[in-house]
Amino acid sequence: MNIKIKWLRDKLRTQNLQGMIVSNPVNVKYLTGIEAEGELLITLRENIFITDSRYVEAVNTILTIEDEILVNDKKNLNKDDYAAFFMFCENVGFEENFVTYAEYKEMLQKYRVNLMETEKIVESQRIIKEEKEIQCIERACEITDKCFEYLQSFIKIGMTEKEIAFEIERFYKTNGADGVSFEPIVASGHNSSMPHAVPGNRKIKDGDLILIDMGCKYKGYCSDMTRMIFVNCIEDEYKEAYDICLKNNEMVEKEIKDGKNMKTISQNSNNDLKVNGYSPLHSVGHGVGLDIHEKPFFSITYDQQLKENMVVTVEPGVYKTGQFGIRIEDTVLVGKMGITRLTKSSKEPTIING
Amino acid sequence: MNIKIKWLRDKLRTQNLQGMIVSNPVNVKYLTGIEAEGELLITLRENIFITDSRYVEAVNTILTIEDEILVNDKKNLNKDDYAAFFMFCENVGFEENFVTYAEYKEMLQKYRVNLMETEKIVESQRIIKEEKEIQCIERACEITDKCFEYLQSFIKIGMTEKEIAFEIERFYKTNGADGVSFEPIVASGHNSSMPHAVPGNRKIKDGDLILIDMGCKYKGYCSDMTRMIFVNCIEDEYKEAYDICLKNNEMVEKEIKDGKNMKTISQNSNNDLKVNGYSPLHSVGHGVGLDIHEKPFFSITYDQQLKENMVVTVEPGVYKTGQFGIRIEDTVLVGKMGITRLTKSSKEPTIING
Repeated sequence: MNIKIKWLRDKLRTQNLQGMIVSNPVNVKYLTGIEAEGELLITLRENIFITDSRYVEAVNTILTIEDEILVNDKKNLNKDDYAAFFMFCENVGFEENFVTYAEYKEMLQKYRVNLMETEKIVESQRIIKEEKEIQCIERACEITDKCFEYLQSFIKIGMTEKEIAFEIERFYKTNGADGVSFEPIVASGHNSSMPHAVPGNRKIKDGDLILIDMGCKYKGYCSDMTRMIFVNCIEDEYKEAYDICLKNNEMVEKEIKDGKNMKTISQNSNNDLKVNGYSPLHSVGHGVGLDIHEKPFFSITYDQQLKENMVVTVEPGVYKTGQFGIRIEDTVLVGKMGITRLTKSSKEPTIING
Repeated sequence: MNIKIKWLRDKLRTQNLQGMIVSNPVNVKYLTGIEAEGELLITLRENIFITDSRYVEAVNTILTIEDEILVNDKKNLNKDDYAAFFMFCENVGFEENFVTYAEYKEMLQKYRVNLMETEKIVESQRIIKEEKEIQCIERACEITDKCFEYLQSFIKIGMTEKEIAFEIERFYKTNGADGVSFEPIVASGHNSSMPHAVPGNRKIKDGDLILIDMGCKYKGYCSDMTRMIFVNCIEDEYKEAYDICLKNNEMVEKEIKDGKNMKTISQNSNNDLKVNGYSPLHSVGHGVGLDIHEKPFFSITYDQQLKENMVVTVEPGVYKTGQFGIRIEDTVLVGKMGITRLTKSSKEPTIING
């Protein structure tokens, strides 16, 4: 049987669950490789993927006998079939963080079983990356580095943020990535003060700073990187803020290794920003994998230990409302002794000829 | 006050709800114009948008005093603030089809109020489009027609499905659209037999048929259209299937008008496909608006009346597993006497010189 499902089955047993309904498509992909609408049922004896006629053919072409996953077209299932799936099961897990309240009520009716919360059981399995997964993230980061290098010659005065954002998408799709891992943020001038700015029609000007937050997917796995570009020169005020941000970024990257507490690291980063006169507007980082934001999350309130083979971002930012913002972000692999940076673009301020 | 929120408040009153928590960002955009993460609270006296520091600045720039919406940064709110929002409210609605089971439990704790299901109250408000909304969909359809015209000269033998899909995205972004309304489907040869095929590396060949299902967004509103392209010639088997599909499409479009039952129309369409030797693999259409798939849905089991100013797709398809598929789809506006086609590309088989 598929090794990841085997692992999940063992885990379910320790929680006194005799089955599970996996509804989150990212978790379905993680466990089975399937990319289609549907539900994966882990029952006492079988693994069943319930989908609809649009996907049956496609799903069957990617599964092998070794996967031991049966594919069912839901139009061939009746009430009794649903009630039979979890026969002899006392407790069956469901994904309370993905399933809506309405779907939960429907599941109760359909499967006629005791549904138990599973507290991100599969997401927790996904935190520690396997070699193969790390390779995919590495590749996604490599393509992102190449994209940033390319942008330095592409960006010119007069272009709009939108045009640059579109070029990032084009680069990814024509350079081996599946596509973007999120809509790129290209925020120039005062727009950069909004951490989640949407690229607009503002044109790049001489002396601008441009915040570029971007990432791609490779075989479903994400990269995430932010760099600043300065057009022709770098104003003193920007340079001062840049140095504060970079110092913070490097401090955090030095602190990260197996066993370290993410809460302490978050607090240290925030304190350093505050000492330098900036209020932190967002957390210092998050896990990256099949989702662009996934466990573990850096938090100033929540204890969590870093472990070997986690992949996280480090992304402190300094913002002056309505004026400018600067963020420097890497995707990094957590190791026993420290990090390996997966995004490798230089962190010296990038000044281009616009 | 914002007129859509006023309408919602009246509706809530008739359902004995003294407030509502709107969590679905598409509904928040519909009601307020806001595009940001957060929750809209309709309380007894106020309309409050709770967001986080990343969005406060951006949200405040789009709201006017007339909107009467207060913006709160959640980091400034404590337990008591949350408990106070719905003071003196007996029942408060929530979006059971959007909120996860875990979020529901959190809301219960946070707002300490009786949470009631609202059965897609805002989605139902969205079914009948206003003049302004129709104009946006019309514009999205117009750009889609232009894109299809462009593709007829762009597509050449040897190109991959992926390349064509990317060109569709590029066209949209550089011709006035916000972007795609869904990942375009470009399925050539036998790939077309999978209704939701993902564009791959298959190269276009002489004699191919290519199914192209695409749409864009304009000011957030979607278009949706499917057309077939035949390369250099059209095989007899394809032509026969095409005629069956087109006849069905035209039959359905003729039946659609204010007052007609969507179930009857669905059944008629399915019966016609079956008589011609094809099993229907999907429903004949769905509503289109801020979401690419939204209420109302054509269904062979569920009664629903068409009303003036609904916007729906008409998209019958005929499929031979592993061999080929043909689908012809329009976005149409429902009127008192019949439809207005909003996607206007010719439905004669399109044969290109590849």
